Amino acid sequence: MPTAIPSEAEVIRYMDTLSNWGRWGNDDEFGALNFITPEKRQRAAQLVHTGTTVTCSRPIVTDITADTTYQPMRFMIDSGEGRDTDPPERVLQRRGASEFIGMVFHGYTITHVDSLAHYFWQGKMYNGRPSRLVTSREGAQANAIELLRDGVVTRGVLLDIPRLRGIDWMTAGEGVMPEDLEAAERACGVTVETGDVLLIRTGYYRQRLAQGAINPGHDGSPAAHVACAPWFHKREIAMLGTDTHNDVSPLPYPNLGNALHVVSLVAMGLWLIDNCNLEELAQACATHNRWEFMLTICPLRLRNVTGSPVNPVAIF
Amino acid sequence: MPTAIPSEAEVIRYMDTLSNWGRWGNDDEFGALNFITPEKRQRAAQLVHTGTTVTCSRPIVTDITADTTYQPMRFMIDSGEGRDTDPPERVLQRRGASEFIGMVFHGYTITHVDSLAHYFWQGKMYNGRPSRLVTSREGAQANAIELLRDGVVTRGVLLDIPRLRGIDWMTAGEGVMPEDLEAAERACGVTVETGDVLLIRTGYYRQRLAQGAINPGHDGSPAAHVACAPWFHKREIAMLGTDTHNDVSPLPYPNLGNALHVVSLVAMGLWLIDNCNLEELAQACATHNRWEFMLTICPLRLRNVTGSPVNPVAIF
Amino acid sequence: MPTAIPSEAEVIRYMDTLSNWGRWGNDDEFGALNFITPEKRQRAAQLVHTGTTVTCSRPIVTDITADTTYQPMRFMIDSGEGRDTDPPERVLQRRGASEFIGMVFHGYTITHVDSLAHYFWQGKMYNGRPSRLVTSREGAQANAIELLRDGVVTRGVLLDIPRLRGIDWMTAGEGVMPEDLEAAERACGVTVETGDVLLIRTGYYRQRLAQGAINPGHDGSPAAHVACAPWFHKREIAMLGTDTHNDVSPLPYPNLGNALHVVSLVAMGLWLIDNCNLEELAQACATHNRWEFMLTICPLRLRNVTGSPVNPVAIF
Amino acid sequence: MPTAIPSEAEVIRYMDTLSNWGRWGNDDEFGALNFITPEKRQRAAQLVHTGTTVTCSRPIVTDITADTTYQPMRFMIDSGEGRDTDPPERVLQRRGASEFIGMVFHGYTITHVDSLAHYFWQGKMYNGRPSRLVTSREGAQANAIELLRDGVVTRGVLLDIPRLRGIDWMTAGEGVMPEDLEAAERACGVTVETGDVLLIRTGYYRQRLAQGAINPGHDGSPAAHVACAPWFHKREIAMLGTDTHNDVSPLPYPNLGNALHVVSLVAMGLWLIDNCNLEELAQACATHNRWEFMLTICPLRLRNVTGSPVNPVAIF
Repeated sequence: MPTAIPSEAEVIRYMDTLSNWGRWGNDDEFGALNFITPEKRQRAAQLVHTGTTVTCSRPIVTDITADTTYQPMRFMIDSGEGRDTDPPERVLQRRGASEFIGMVFHGYTITHVDSLAHYFWQGKMYNGRPSRLVTSREGAQANAIELLRDGVVTRGVLLDIPRLRGIDWMTAGEGVMPEDLEAAERACGVTVETGDVLLIRTGYYRQRLAQGAINPGHDGSPAAHVACAPWFHKREIAMLGTDTHNDVSPLPYPNLGNALHVVSLVAMGLWLIDNCNLEELAQACATHNRWEFMLTICPLRLRNVTGSPVNPVAIF
Repeated sequence: MPTAIPSEAEVIRYMDTLSNWGRWGNDDEFGALNFITPEKRQRAAQLVHTGTTVTCSRPIVTDITADTTYQPMRFMIDSGEGRDTDPPERVLQRRGASEFIGMVFHGYTITHVDSLAHYFWQGKMYNGRPSRLVTSREGAQANAIELLRDGVVTRGVLLDIPRLRGIDWMTAGEGVMPEDLEAAERACGVTVETGDVLLIRTGYYRQRLAQGAINPGHDGSPAAHVACAPWFHKREIAMLGTDTHNDVSPLPYPNLGNALHVVSLVAMGLWLIDNCNLEELAQACATHNRWEFMLTICPLRLRNVTGSPVNPVAIF
Repeated sequence: MPTAIPSEAEVIRYMDTLSNWGRWGNDDEFGALNFITPEKRQRAAQLVHTGTTVTCSRPIVTDITADTTYQPMRFMIDSGEGRDTDPPERVLQRRGASEFIGMVFHGYTITHVDSLAHYFWQGKMYNGRPSRLVTSREGAQANAIELLRDGVVTRGVLLDIPRLRGIDWMTAGEGVMPEDLEAAERACGVTVETGDVLLIRTGYYRQRLAQGAINPGHDGSPAAHVACAPWFHKREIAMLGTDTHNDVSPLPYPNLGNALHVVSLVAMGLWLIDNCNLEELAQACATHNRWEFMLTICPLRLRNVTGSPVNPVAIF
Repeated sequence: MPTAIPSEAEVIRYMDTLSNWGRWGNDDEFGALNFITPEKRQRAAQLVHTGTTVTCSRPIVTDITADTTYQPMRFMIDSGEGRDTDPPERVLQRRGASEFIGMVFHGYTITHVDSLAHYFWQGKMYNGRPSRLVTSREGAQANAIELLRDGVVTRGVLLDIPRLRGIDWMTAGEGVMPEDLEAAERACGVTVETGDVLLIRTGYYRQRLAQGAINPGHDGSPAAHVACAPWFHKREIAMLGTDTHNDVSPLPYPNLGNALHVVSLVAMGLWLIDNCNLEELAQACATHNRWEFMLTICPLRLRNVTGSPVNPVAIF
């Protein structure tokens, strides 16, 4: 019997029933990343057989596209132009080519980690910290990305839903349900376990590559449905990454906004990776006929920031 | 007999004698990273015994310090302030806390990779490409950081010179010489080999933590001396990282500027990691009594950019 | 007989025939602004009869529209949110609301002055200075906007072409010709004279307000035709402002790009005001039945910059 | 008898006794700028006798100095480098030199106007609007700078306190008192009247030019003392500009922060110009032996912003 779409009231009850507040102590800021142990990492390294590495990141470009909210910036401090004809004294003055880069990585286009300071529910973040600890002037003074300074290294598992269904991509508004995840597990012979980073492919980025960008806020997107939250909780995944912005759009929850964000980041302490590129990874998994791999995610050590652009790399 | 400090003319001859132009084909943009093979990566994964991970990155902060050239930026798009008292309609309008981040990662403070588009010599970059391919408007159209989209995964080796000498840190203007590297190899029972990422600790960052920032442009810094370039070439390292900006300051080469940058990036195609934090790594190596480890460097997929801020993570 | 559209070769000849290089000395950087004398300013002040002031600037907004090349930025350093419920110690920590603002003012949307460092012809700027004085690292080291630190105060004259023709706006690709200017002079009883800032209204911004933005690069725009350049030269205007980006698009001059920019900025030393909003001004002129007024343009004192966003204000 | 330094309680009473809330209607956002009438502007224009113009703005530079809080940015989009040797097809691709500029104009270095959205008292701005109308995401939705789109044109009056006292500059922590203002009026034969923009020179910027920057937050600065607020109220000035950040530092008011900002911006609706450069103006006044002039302030039409960098221009 397929999982029913939960009502808004049911999703709001998840805030209690799936809560990990206090589970790892009242001071904990790591949330579900506590599921990753040194032993888990050591076993993940044993998955490296061929030494092939694969990015899970989209490129970061400065173009304005339909899904741009804030245009990424790249401005050269110095270029290579004119260097072949610079007079000698100018040659000595000029240093390397370099640039300013700037971005709002949250949004619909950049592959990034959401820290547990990114979302709030009723004035609180994960583990009951008050939202006012994230200030305009000082930034995120708790639950911030620098907690991950030593990286996230663990087993990654890819569940490729379009492959399971024999389609190119899921359509806007469609949600991956728990039975989809379990069917993908069976089809691939893999079982999601404690401390895994679960990557769910919907094909959304493949559609973007094939047909150009749409604005998911206006035109919708697939994702794992919030109905999967109890399943994520039971399986004790450490992190969730998807090739969309990680919430089905639109959602019929007027009071919840991005429901999976709220339940994951606030109640479960489940860190998210938004806007992955899982295209090369899906090919690599198919080539190796293996849907598990060592996965390394190394966020920038940005102080007091609610996440980081990342380039997650899978190693086969 | 200790290595003599090479004259400027000798260093300029390195541009020919240490050149890797054409070594991996005329179209090659990877340079010394070609030394990393899948087998090398697979063996690196076998170095993971305990599953401990250690950052090699400094924090990225917005403070202005003595070594700031361009102040990093963090501006909140939305904060957590006021959320506990927002009226209901405002609660629904507000989304997650998020921010703009911006930086010039080249400089003296941010841990970053230099791509082979960062430096020029006589109007050319690595493998003979003209410097004018790096334009103000379009950025780096060759030798750019996105080449590393699949990450750098290999064996890392730390050579800890202050530990070898029993000092806290090397002093400004002091260069690590080849015999220092070999003495450190002997002391630690490790040999730098083809495809390794070599990390050299001078203690400069420890001094900064203990005594505050200085401006290396004015007040100098230690680093690996350019006299080590033939040694790097012979050992076929894939990348070099140091806890300084990777050139001794000051240097007696009026026509060369940052001599090690020029020889490494332009002639040898040797990618650099500047401004590492090797403090936790040095402790971890001492604790494990092991100066080799799996190392993962996952630059952001910034398009047409001359490098990337990174958080290199060592796995023991 | 209407003015013929000049051929490309004829326009290129303007570079000589209309050149003001050397006219005010070999060191001059002011160009046609030399036409404004203290007496001219004093007479301009005598045009103030009612004390009404009118902006000639468009608003600067952060939206992405069809004519956005670089998205303007506004990020709050501190907001007013939460201030009503801040605990007392937090009240004392917080200071005023403030923000970072950033923009590329050159482009199609922001009202701005082009300094004579903005354009080049055959490697030279106005008065023969080499283009290489405008560097990536140091900015514009000659002909830069800070020359206008004391503001531009003179008589402004509006020539309103749609009003003359009884239309709402001129269409894309259409150029204002010298005979249009003279017809407008006759219709309004005003004569453009030495040292005036000439404002030419095409109605382009009215169309944008009525129908939304288009991309003038793709979809074209009206402007004063480069065929007017000899007329501007003869009349000795000090500055030219239009409600478009100041060049007809498209133009049949493959080797010239923005022809009026090249001739004005490089040869004539004629500073430009791009992307004016002349809607309120046109109404005020009609209301006062007067097409001349005191005009003040006060560029920001940006050092080494090729122009400035401005809010020109007309005083009646 | 000299004015006594008011106690904190007395200053807090100013919030009531000097309040202009409701004076120009409950919807008013202009505050004291209502004192400027068209007739006032017309009379100001009659002050133009010689046509000399003088900036009141400091340069905007990208240097980090002791008074930098946020480093201003200038990054070239395209430079003039290489243009003399570009191949023909590249010549056609390149457009004008242009740049990104960015700044936090509030602070200690940039000449800027504070709008009435810049400061709050007990959760409210001028005229009782709630502080929460200034949000991180949307900016200032009331009392914002775009209200001044038509510019501020009126009589300016300079009161030059160091000249009065025969000193180079006032010292840090020193406040200009009402009797100083009246003594300067008498000495110069000028009387501050309704609708004037009052400029008060302390010599602080002259000291900065002579001795380099200090951090006024740490090392103090002179300014008009908040004890002048009743005088400003009585004289009905429309705007106040000073060559400091407009509050004496330090101030003995632990609960008020920048006391003159709070009283002026919140209670009186008196817009401020911070960080003026009054050096050239003081010379021009002395030369003309006249301390009144036409003054034009043309803020950028920045939407939803709490102020604007400006270049106020005085016309003699």
